[in-house]
Amino acid sequence: MISKNQLKLIRALGQKKYRKQHNQYLVQGEKNVLELLASGLAIVDVFATAAFIAQFQAQFPHVTMIEADEDSLTKASTLVSNNASIAVVAMPTVALPSPEGLMLALDGVSDPGNLGTIIRVADWYGINHIVASLDSADPYNPKTISATMGSFVRVAVSQVDLPAYLNDLDLPIYGAFLEGENLHQATLAQTGVLLMGSESHGIRGACAALVTNKITIPAFGAAESLNVAMATGIILDNFKRQA
Amino acid sequence: MISKNQLKLIRALGQKKYRKQHNQYLVQGEKNVLELLASGLAIVDVFATAAFIAQFQAQFPHVTMIEADEDSLTKASTLVSNNASIAVVAMPTVALPSPEGLMLALDGVSDPGNLGTIIRVADWYGINHIVASLDSADPYNPKTISATMGSFVRVAVSQVDLPAYLNDLDLPIYGAFLEGENLHQATLAQTGVLLMGSESHGIRGACAALVTNKITIPAFGAAESLNVAMATGIILDNFKRQA
Repeated sequence: MISKNQLKLIRALGQKKYRKQHNQYLVQGEKNVLELLASGLAIVDVFATAAFIAQFQAQFPHVTMIEADEDSLTKASTLVSNNASIAVVAMPTVALPSPEGLMLALDGVSDPGNLGTIIRVADWYGINHIVASLDSADPYNPKTISATMGSFVRVAVSQVDLPAYLNDLDLPIYGAFLEGENLHQATLAQTGVLLMGSESHGIRGACAALVTNKITIPAFGAAESLNVAMATGIILDNFKRQA
Repeated sequence: MISKNQLKLIRALGQKKYRKQHNQYLVQGEKNVLELLASGLAIVDVFATAAFIAQFQAQFPHVTMIEADEDSLTKASTLVSNNASIAVVAMPTVALPSPEGLMLALDGVSDPGNLGTIIRVADWYGINHIVASLDSADPYNPKTISATMGSFVRVAVSQVDLPAYLNDLDLPIYGAFLEGENLHQATLAQTGVLLMGSESHGIRGACAALVTNKITIPAFGAAESLNVAMATGIILDNFKRQA
């Protein structure tokens, strides 16, 4: 069962300030917890239903799962559904990525669901490290983790002073704008940075000034824009088809 | 202001059975209501804040907006945010699309947010009619409309007996599977159907049997799958680059 203190900790980890204080975060739901169990991440506690334990404990003998009924898990969970299991995980120390291959940089993406979806599609296209501006959504927000569908175990996100970070790179920086070169016709280098802007402001001035190649997803209809996660996926697909 | 009866109607239209009964649906939030006002759709009522009316009424003299304070709009709204305006709209009669160009078909996409995101990306790529199985998410669900970011005014969705509908077409049917032809190498006809499956079951047997071309988005990393809306956008981009 989940003790009162454990319940208090789990609820607290729904908030950024307590995640920072405890240096821990939550992983919730079957798919995400299973990916976590199969990863090398530092697990503190795993709470799970009897059914989950019966099905999966044997596969992961290195972790002793704590049984809890679904009501308790639902009560503890910071998400509305998918409460077969909740894990508490120690935050890893993430080193800045050494520049190689195609990198992904996010300037102010503020919605945790969008960030999680971007992590998932980055994982699909083999990008295992994202740099994000300091004001981007928290990579350890439960909604971010949830939207990654397990990809959080393979893709690290570093929050950095993004203009300073990009300025130090000597690489082409591809920025997604509404008026750039047609992505279908552009030559896309396989070593460089893809820079995506925020939902409401796009790429802001300080980063925009560092962009070497403006690119645009060609439109064939009348929608004004695409969701930033969708745009990221489409552009990554275009890069990878030239790989 | 919003009368008690109007409030009751708005709240009721959050539910499918009342949308069917009244043959009306809701459009909420500034971006969606502005697209609605600029469209030819049959508007029943528009409720909006004084600020919204001051800014936009003059552009849309054919509609008399009813002023309501933000508290009332928030109370009436079925969504959590973005309550500058709520409109009640008469459901259009949607004729089945005559087969031309590239069509999009959805087999059991059940999340309204995913359906809305698919409508938005379809609009970006110039597809103005989607056919969806009878058990797909309701195109008039407030969460669907919200996620379209205004594209609901340009993209119609018909819910049909999908296997029967596809069976009557004499066109190539491209189905998205995890083990099909590499999308980056496939020749993609510009007249045909792109068929996408549900979040949990993919394309089901009855529709799968009608697929003439299985296609797959090539993976370069370790994510197990992509969100269905994301996959739809990436595949549409691949079709359109051959257009």
